[in-house]
Amino acid sequence: MSAIDALVTELSRLPTIGRKSAVRLTYHLLKQPAEQSRRLAEALVALTERVRPCAECFNLTEGERCAICTDPRRDAALLCVIEEASDLPAIERTGEFRGRYHVLGGRLAPLDGIGPSDLTVGALVRRLEGGAVREVIVATNATLEGEATALYVQEQVRATGVTVSRLARGLPMGGDLEYADGGTIAQAFAARRVM
Amino acid sequence: MSAIDALVTELSRLPTIGRKSAVRLTYHLLKQPAEQSRRLAEALVALTERVRPCAECFNLTEGERCAICTDPRRDAALLCVIEEASDLPAIERTGEFRGRYHVLGGRLAPLDGIGPSDLTVGALVRRLEGGAVREVIVATNATLEGEATALYVQEQVRATGVTVSRLARGLPMGGDLEYADGGTIAQAFAARRVM
Repeated sequence: MSAIDALVTELSRLPTIGRKSAVRLTYHLLKQPAEQSRRLAEALVALTERVRPCAECFNLTEGERCAICTDPRRDAALLCVIEEASDLPAIERTGEFRGRYHVLGGRLAPLDGIGPSDLTVGALVRRLEGGAVREVIVATNATLEGEATALYVQEQVRATGVTVSRLARGLPMGGDLEYADGGTIAQAFAARRVM
Repeated sequence: MSAIDALVTELSRLPTIGRKSAVRLTYHLLKQPAEQSRRLAEALVALTERVRPCAECFNLTEGERCAICTDPRRDAALLCVIEEASDLPAIERTGEFRGRYHVLGGRLAPLDGIGPSDLTVGALVRRLEGGAVREVIVATNATLEGEATALYVQEQVRATGVTVSRLARGLPMGGDLEYADGGTIAQAFAARRVM
């Protein structure tokens, strides 16, 4: 396979990039200084070599613990539970939440064979047993699977005696948290209700 | 800068990929086996190291001369002049053209400071002086700049005594050759007119 075809094939594997886009991106890179392709390649390698889950909250980090877990200004008494690390930037952008996070690593999806043991709920319960957390805010997506996951997390957390709340129905139904606008997420935080 | 931010920044430099898409692609790659990011990185490096312009027609190639220039079944008497190497696959897909190519490397664009000396027209004229070419088909884009470029190429080629033709007005005005469908391009080839 030629170098051009090889890159087109690799780019086509990415979501939202079809074959035509991949061809266009490849020819675009060929017209740029080689430095640009090299920097992109280096960034890809660095990503796979350096990024791993935070030992405490499973957010992505390059160290042992993530930037939020190691920030003393973040309220350790407030824990926001999200499905994926990719949901975190959307919440951070609102500036409404000053606590810490817990990344589940997915949502309950029996049809895809994803059950409770595939999520980090066990680690969450162990974090709560430390006694520092006052409230857990469940911020799973407003989808059927996100709702089911929220209910499961709620049950597990309630058993530890810690208060559980949930983002208010400010999120549009069926919507992905990652795509919600800052205002909607901020409103959902402000109007969260105790479960 | 973190490895995640670095990759988001590099991906955002690509056309049609905004910051949100770049973030989504990055998190997607983090969920895939590291092997996928590594293969993409290798393809990028191979592209910059191995691909260069064909010594004869300026199409992209990994050797000294491209696959079309070295193919004895391609008619050396017929030369199709295109703006960019990325226009070539669209023409090849129609299967209508069995000659060879000449890639200009752009189009005349005085406002962007691109003049005749930035294009490979001089090399084209030298190719024609070899005497093997019977007809030059100008297949620049049907844009204002593409038209101006076609007129300039026509003047230069006519001085050598070689016939110059041009793709028929089957191409929709203002359209980019790269995005035209095969039928339209095939029709434009069939109805090309002598300049």
